[in-house]
Amino acid sequence: MSLSMYDASVPVFVRVLRNLDQVLAKGEAHARDKGADPDTLLQSRLIFDMLPLVRQVQIATDMATRGASRLAGVEPRSVEDNETTFEQLHARIAGAIAHLEGFTPAQFEGSETRAVSFKTRAGELKFDGQGYLLTYVLPNLYFHATTAYNLLRRNGVGIGKTDFLGG
Amino acid sequence: MSLSMYDASVPVFVRVLRNLDQVLAKGEAHARDKGADPDTLLQSRLIFDMLPLVRQVQIATDMATRGASRLAGVEPRSVEDNETTFEQLHARIAGAIAHLEGFTPAQFEGSETRAVSFKTRAGELKFDGQGYLLTYVLPNLYFHATTAYNLLRRNGVGIGKTDFLGG
Repeated sequence: MSLSMYDASVPVFVRVLRNLDQVLAKGEAHARDKGADPDTLLQSRLIFDMLPLVRQVQIATDMATRGASRLAGVEPRSVEDNETTFEQLHARIAGAIAHLEGFTPAQFEGSETRAVSFKTRAGELKFDGQGYLLTYVLPNLYFHATTAYNLLRRNGVGIGKTDFLGG
Repeated sequence: MSLSMYDASVPVFVRVLRNLDQVLAKGEAHARDKGADPDTLLQSRLIFDMLPLVRQVQIATDMATRGASRLAGVEPRSVEDNETTFEQLHARIAGAIAHLEGFTPAQFEGSETRAVSFKTRAGELKFDGQGYLLTYVLPNLYFHATTAYNLLRRNGVGIGKTDFLGG
């Protein structure tokens, strides 16, 4: 009657990031087909006061790597938010996936009750591991991956929900 | 080291739908503030060839109720897609939440290995319960809830990610 905390997190995060990487690749190809500089797409937004595509991708990768780290009880790594090209964003995603693949199921044993707390701009957030995964990491990860998808979709990129869901 | 299939599904689905309901209420209020007929918002789309807001909400509720039913091994209920007003959509969401709250944790015991198969326009899909929840229901549910949010956000509705994530 149960699911391991590892299975509910690491492989799911990797899958979301791999699909996001494919969606980005289609965005880049679309811009090239139009004769545009693809990297300008990274600054596009759904509306002026939402974050641009590059930030959606940066946050998605951080959500996944920090989520796995905190569940495993290790200090999240810190990476700079300095990407300005698709190439750099693909490298960031590849780095995040490699980092995620370094975690082992054993590190997640008992993580459903592990105390997780961290500071955000809105103040300190406190969860147990289960609440952190189900009500914070997964909703945020899917939110930013979907927003990246929607942003590209609205720019005319030929992607469909199967690209988002993956094979 | 584990999470119950019930905890990873039903309360999560309810939470997503409650937050979506709040986001919709803010969209409706925004349209009224502008002196517009709120129900016209239900037909708005992020781009012409994506589904309108009303369909995003209908699909989100179906994903949740069908997801819970298939995991519990019962036949999904069928509801008509005939809403044209915010009032009707709120009722649809309330009905879906009531339906979800009728499931018991015991119905989900062993559901991680339960065979789930169903027909879609793209053909028959087959999963075990764990794969169905993690790679189909949750990504789809978050996809449509986020797209509804993005659609309203792009129409100028004053919502932020905390509305999406809930309290």
